[in-house]
Amino acid sequence: MWRATILTLFPEMFPGPLGLSLAGDALKRDIWSLEAIDIRAHGLGKHRSVDDTPFGGGAGMVIRADVLAASLDAALAPDDARPRLLMSPRGKPLTQARVRQLADGPGVALVCGRFEGIDERAIEARDLEEISIGDYVLSGGELAALVLLDAAVRLLPGVMGKLESGAEESFENGRLEYPHYTKPRTFEGRAVPEVLLSGDHAKIAAWREAEAQALTAARRPDLLATSLRAKRGNPESK
Amino acid sequence: MWRATILTLFPEMFPGPLGLSLAGDALKRDIWSLEAIDIRAHGLGKHRSVDDTPFGGGAGMVIRADVLAASLDAALAPDDARPRLLMSPRGKPLTQARVRQLADGPGVALVCGRFEGIDERAIEARDLEEISIGDYVLSGGELAALVLLDAAVRLLPGVMGKLESGAEESFENGRLEYPHYTKPRTFEGRAVPEVLLSGDHAKIAAWREAEAQALTAARRPDLLATSLRAKRGNPESK
Repeated sequence: MWRATILTLFPEMFPGPLGLSLAGDALKRDIWSLEAIDIRAHGLGKHRSVDDTPFGGGAGMVIRADVLAASLDAALAPDDARPRLLMSPRGKPLTQARVRQLADGPGVALVCGRFEGIDERAIEARDLEEISIGDYVLSGGELAALVLLDAAVRLLPGVMGKLESGAEESFENGRLEYPHYTKPRTFEGRAVPEVLLSGDHAKIAAWREAEAQALTAARRPDLLATSLRAKRGNPESK
Repeated sequence: MWRATILTLFPEMFPGPLGLSLAGDALKRDIWSLEAIDIRAHGLGKHRSVDDTPFGGGAGMVIRADVLAASLDAALAPDDARPRLLMSPRGKPLTQARVRQLADGPGVALVCGRFEGIDERAIEARDLEEISIGDYVLSGGELAALVLLDAAVRLLPGVMGKLESGAEESFENGRLEYPHYTKPRTFEGRAVPEVLLSGDHAKIAAWREAEAQALTAARRPDLLATSLRAKRGNPESK
């Protein structure tokens, strides 16, 4: 079973949206497990305080290194082999390739920051890897953790239908996905592209490939460049 | 009031995590409003069917153009000036600059895809702008919509404290944020950097600036390059 452990000040946000639809169904079928741990359980004093003002001044509060470390030490066994990720806009951007790698592993331990951030020494001392879901700032790491979990869980064996392997999706082969069409044949005067009605599978595959290529070139030339570089840099890969 | 209208097959996912913490508090205080509309209300037949198999073959189901268009037409008045965004991995990547722009406007109308995707003709005919929260694939657009809303709502006037304007955050000025430290002074033998205890505000500001610069150069040189290009391309901006 793929295991997710979340350290958060808002354990009640989990599983949240993940309890519904695909991921929720997989949770009920024990394909994965989810444990949301309240950092505040290791807070200090009567008020279970977890944060304090930043050294050097500035707005907001910072989560204490000792509180977060105690929470991590209690939640994770020393031999726990799962990656320990801190959801943070300062982190390495999450990619579909990384999501696949995480889905292929034993699971994840995710730390969700709040307030101004987390004392840097907790990140260093507990060897947390900062990871970012995009170039914007959220009010906390919880939604980022939900996004990472949704992306990973749908790739676990038995979650998607057999036919929907995800192999033709966006970001596989460094391309965005081709456009989709379904009934009716004509919608407000707009017809489905002829080729899709031809029954000629080779021609349909070629059209979809060309559309994916054109869309990516127009919207995300950076993906094509990265994909080319990866191919050139590693001549053994196909 | 900033208004968010969501078109989704899972209206029960909203406000979800946004009902708690900062965004939930702002929702109660009428700083923003949230309306989640079930696309299935415009589904066809007794079973309120919303999707069908893709023309040209392939796995999964595609949301019908007529159903989605009817749902949009019922939800949005013709003179509704809000951007109509389709959450999609094929879209333009969301950035903090775009989030600020959206937060400065009247609100958003967000369409959440599911299954294999949405009939391309609905995107064209209703002029939906595809937007992506990152280079990975989710099981649906709902979590992406929650992410966009959280990022935008925290920037609305009255949501964050006055001191926490977000001006020093990651992605402002093309940089990641500097590291934070709070009590205790020493954690597991790790001391807080001397300069932060000096009380010398100019020195502290210079140290933070240097740290932000070094972190960005190490982890996200692409942000520095973009920021430089923006400055060069627009000599009037500071």
